[in-house]
Amino acid sequence: MIESALDLVGAGAEAGEAMHALIAQLYPICRSITGDGVRRTLAAIEQRIPLNVFEVPTGAAVFDWTIPREWNIRDAWIKNSRGDRIVDFQRCNLHVLNYSTPIHATVPLAQLKAHLYSIPEQPDRIPYRTSYYREAWGFCVTHEQLASLNEDAYEVCIDSSLTEGHLTYGECYLPGTTADEVLISCHVCHPSLCNDNLSGVSVATFLAQALFKRRRRYSYRFLFIPGTIGAIAWLARNQVEAARIRHGLVLTCVGDPGAFHYKKSRRGDAEIDRIVAHVLRQQPGQHKLLEFSPYGYDERQFCSPGFNLPVGCLMRSVWGDFPEYHTSADNLDFVKAEALSESLSVCLAVCDVIEHNRRFRNTHPFCEPALGPRGLYATTGGGRAAVENLAKLWALNLSDGHHSLLDIADRAGLGFTTIRAAAAALADHGLLAPADDAPD
Amino acid sequence: MIESALDLVGAGAEAGEAMHALIAQLYPICRSITGDGVRRTLAAIEQRIPLNVFEVPTGAAVFDWTIPREWNIRDAWIKNSRGDRIVDFQRCNLHVLNYSTPIHATVPLAQLKAHLYSIPEQPDRIPYRTSYYREAWGFCVTHEQLASLNEDAYEVCIDSSLTEGHLTYGECYLPGTTADEVLISCHVCHPSLCNDNLSGVSVATFLAQALFKRRRRYSYRFLFIPGTIGAIAWLARNQVEAARIRHGLVLTCVGDPGAFHYKKSRRGDAEIDRIVAHVLRQQPGQHKLLEFSPYGYDERQFCSPGFNLPVGCLMRSVWGDFPEYHTSADNLDFVKAEALSESLSVCLAVCDVIEHNRRFRNTHPFCEPALGPRGLYATTGGGRAAVENLAKLWALNLSDGHHSLLDIADRAGLGFTTIRAAAAALADHGLLAPADDAPD
Amino acid sequence: MIESALDLVGAGAEAGEAMHALIAQLYPICRSITGDGVRRTLAAIEQRIPLNVFEVPTGAAVFDWTIPREWNIRDAWIKNSRGDRIVDFQRCNLHVLNYSTPIHATVPLAQLKAHLYSIPEQPDRIPYRTSYYREAWGFCVTHEQLASLNEDAYEVCIDSSLTEGHLTYGECYLPGTTADEVLISCHVCHPSLCNDNLSGVSVATFLAQALFKRRRRYSYRFLFIPGTIGAIAWLARNQVEAARIRHGLVLTCVGDPGAFHYKKSRRGDAEIDRIVAHVLRQQPGQHKLLEFSPYGYDERQFCSPGFNLPVGCLMRSVWGDFPEYHTSADNLDFVKAEALSESLSVCLAVCDVIEHNRRFRNTHPFCEPALGPRGLYATTGGGRAAVENLAKLWALNLSDGHHSLLDIADRAGLGFTTIRAAAAALADHGLLAPADDAPD
Repeated sequence: MIESALDLVGAGAEAGEAMHALIAQLYPICRSITGDGVRRTLAAIEQRIPLNVFEVPTGAAVFDWTIPREWNIRDAWIKNSRGDRIVDFQRCNLHVLNYSTPIHATVPLAQLKAHLYSIPEQPDRIPYRTSYYREAWGFCVTHEQLASLNEDAYEVCIDSSLTEGHLTYGECYLPGTTADEVLISCHVCHPSLCNDNLSGVSVATFLAQALFKRRRRYSYRFLFIPGTIGAIAWLARNQVEAARIRHGLVLTCVGDPGAFHYKKSRRGDAEIDRIVAHVLRQQPGQHKLLEFSPYGYDERQFCSPGFNLPVGCLMRSVWGDFPEYHTSADNLDFVKAEALSESLSVCLAVCDVIEHNRRFRNTHPFCEPALGPRGLYATTGGGRAAVENLAKLWALNLSDGHHSLLDIADRAGLGFTTIRAAAAALADHGLLAPADDAPD
Repeated sequence: MIESALDLVGAGAEAGEAMHALIAQLYPICRSITGDGVRRTLAAIEQRIPLNVFEVPTGAAVFDWTIPREWNIRDAWIKNSRGDRIVDFQRCNLHVLNYSTPIHATVPLAQLKAHLYSIPEQPDRIPYRTSYYREAWGFCVTHEQLASLNEDAYEVCIDSSLTEGHLTYGECYLPGTTADEVLISCHVCHPSLCNDNLSGVSVATFLAQALFKRRRRYSYRFLFIPGTIGAIAWLARNQVEAARIRHGLVLTCVGDPGAFHYKKSRRGDAEIDRIVAHVLRQQPGQHKLLEFSPYGYDERQFCSPGFNLPVGCLMRSVWGDFPEYHTSADNLDFVKAEALSESLSVCLAVCDVIEHNRRFRNTHPFCEPALGPRGLYATTGGGRAAVENLAKLWALNLSDGHHSLLDIADRAGLGFTTIRAAAAALADHGLLAPADDAPD
Repeated sequence: MIESALDLVGAGAEAGEAMHALIAQLYPICRSITGDGVRRTLAAIEQRIPLNVFEVPTGAAVFDWTIPREWNIRDAWIKNSRGDRIVDFQRCNLHVLNYSTPIHATVPLAQLKAHLYSIPEQPDRIPYRTSYYREAWGFCVTHEQLASLNEDAYEVCIDSSLTEGHLTYGECYLPGTTADEVLISCHVCHPSLCNDNLSGVSVATFLAQALFKRRRRYSYRFLFIPGTIGAIAWLARNQVEAARIRHGLVLTCVGDPGAFHYKKSRRGDAEIDRIVAHVLRQQPGQHKLLEFSPYGYDERQFCSPGFNLPVGCLMRSVWGDFPEYHTSADNLDFVKAEALSESLSVCLAVCDVIEHNRRFRNTHPFCEPALGPRGLYATTGGGRAAVENLAKLWALNLSDGHHSLLDIADRAGLGFTTIRAAAAALADHGLLAPADDAPD
């Protein structure tokens, strides 16, 4: 028997457009792992969801790391000897090597070239490069720009500052009926790049907005943090909270139209791993499950052995695997409203399973109870009715206090929402009773 | 090394013919979940094997269910206005909706049609339909019959009765040297349908006949019961006996020439599941193992979570999957003597493994014992001798008190009977000693 | 990310030639399960590695077996009536049925033929046949020789002796810093046959030579023993030592150019099984893993249930599966220096993993430690540097005291030596600390 209905809570086209609009709003801001770009980004998010913004001072020790100096930038350009701005930060903030030290000098071509980065294979795209922990200045240019440079005296200016300051991150905490937490984390440190990771920022924001309105069994914590150092800072300052995390997702590259990819947690068989696998299986289109590796985004920190949290990473195209990755082509055209909407739907469906993956006990465990007299067994209604009947039989057969509804759905090959609806109907008739200590 | 010999205890062509003859004898009887049809069927079985017949009164509570009123039928027909019996129960008892309430009336075509069932896709076959728990009257006809009906006044008569009475079932109990039980169950509630399930009834009867003559370690209980309500009634009245069931099979659709299918128990890894898989692997021809689902025949009840018995379901073609299923084409031509004989052979081979799946301990566990001087290692005899030598080496190597003979056969890729013979020869020479508490 | 470098400690072409030369030196000797052939073979090995030679007297009980009489042979021939030596032991010692009783007689063709063995399918090859435990005399000849025999009076002479004597075996024991042992075993009982098993003898000798010079965590015990009875004798006399065996390999048929085959230990998941699988995966060319079976060489005894030692069998072509097996074509041309060298490399790589498969604990388990400031994270160096960075991340992520370096390598899909080097670099910086009790 094949189940045709899709078990997703549809997010809708409207949400997709709204998420794309948020990306468009945040796109021009020059973000980095510290500085005002992050603050402006968080301020925009705070327009939509409750957000606590935290500042961690330069020099603070966070586990093995130290918060670096804060970086800010006002302008940057390269002028030729005629005074033309041939490379201009105002046109695209990717042009500056992120975290560049300030400079203002006139240099010959050869010396300039030592500070230029381009992608020969993609000659019309500006690369995204950083130098957080090694002091350097530089410009990122298209390879075409680089090739067109003649011998000349070039005036280079990077009006940046590296000063004692802070690392900034934002937290949206939605309390539930229990203190057990679900973590949703996304990095907010990339400048004008859309899929990586304004897509994650936008989907997380709208997910928080949707969950804000709902009754929640779990408490949800959304982190908008600079990559690596931000995750490390958060974990260092929130070890008690980290211990409450029962399920978690890192969101990145969720705005392009590629197939979904889910990278499992270090545990590999955590409930979140099984939940996302189930939701993606139920979802139309291809998807792929990836084994954990200690390389990637902030799941690296959440899954470090001292924490070993059940946190996976949801993506569409995988970072590093698509040609637009870390180039100026990861722009507003590359991310699509429909793709964002689907990603939000998947996240909502995942949260739906997290919230409702209960365990029940069949109150009539000896033989099947008579469903017909209770109006629980449809004799008309075709294939869908047959699926619903079957779902009830599965829920009765496996509700022995050990199998969760997800276990039952997976074994039955049916969608979680179908099994959940069956269980609800049975519970309404007293045929199932809760077998866990979750609040009703 | 390939094992060429088949490990089945052959049931023989004679048995196949005899099983087919029993089906032919039972075929005309109009059975239902209650009534004289079942009683007459059990009486015929009792001619062949010891049988206890039980009567459960209407209204008796069996777990969540209640025994319904008893249904009996003497005659039924539809006559056209010329008085011709155009539909006649005497010609085929499938013509009556099973459990029809009595009626005698004259009705116009339109009203009649509301009570007629046919299969448009199989226009020359009469469907089998029931209405046990919803009072209704009706006739099942070929679609050709239906199509040929003209406007007329039709006299319909169903001379049936629904009265306080009993549900009837039969039990054949063959005691063994232990009280541990093997359950063989088949439903006896279908009228003139051969594969579903006179085939199961006939194979069960002949299996009981064969086991009756043998020395048995296990006690065997054969149930000839109405589907669903019969299984529920038996379980409700036999909870002590149910707790003794170590292995069990539901037999249905074992008379057609299709490939064998075995549906595993709810446990999925019960010994019976491994035994049937082993026997079917050893058997020539294709077969398929099916995962448990809570839909099907009486394994649904035996595998309900309160019982969770190690009971699977052996079939050839799967009920519902063959076009003859629940139609008049499931007749005496559809079931074959040879197929019945093979099914009995499989059942006998399964029982053979059940009986002899012992654990031994190698009495010379340090290095191989010298087999040659004991005459246990053939140096001539070709491939079969080589297989027998190898079987002895496997039996010695794995008889550590933990591996059963089936474990050994499966790991060796050899047939159970080959390993069993090897173990017997080794035990005769004192090289293996029993390591379980089974009586010798 | 693909790892291109091969993780093998190269044994080199020189070692291959030297191993082939040792085989050539031992080839002419007529060995059997007892007798001077074994003694002369051990004497040649003793020229290269420290060797203790043991003599077990005829009649000694070793578990279920008894040491047989010692067999020696000086000459053997068949002469035709003209006095020509038409079959001559001096030309090839395979011509005599191994363990033949002495005979000197003149017999007609028909009588002679009852004592001749040939291979009709390989008419130009002499078979290798034995009759250890059944007294008999016989000659092995090419089928062409057999076919060319005419009616004649043949003088047959086998100048052998079966007398009270000894079974002889050799042991090379290389003590390590722990008493835990690695067993390397090869059979030395085959006469002029190169792959089976002078190849095993030669590779074992050179492996011992190589390990002799190294610092060893484990103690290594090399056995040069007659097949079956030798292994049984050794085990019977060394039960204390056997209990110290942590890993073991039987070496046979390791000189031909076929793909590597590894037959797993009875346990199937012993560390040696995982180690050899890992090393063969890392090695260029095809290989195949075989499940344990109680048929083969001396792993049969080491893996008998009373011992159940973690001992597998390393081969290239599998004994019995190549046409040269147990014929005169298993000669000095069939084994190749390069193949021997590769086999030695695999053995050395296996020992390398055995020695260094440690467990560590990440001393900074909360988030990743900062590798860059410690110079542990290469930012240049291309693919190899990226692999080394990744290996460090894996070693940090999984070094929780439970995962061994082999576990980490297998999960990372990287070579053991890469992970080992990463762990060493991390340990040098205090980021990993030993989590086992192995001596440093």
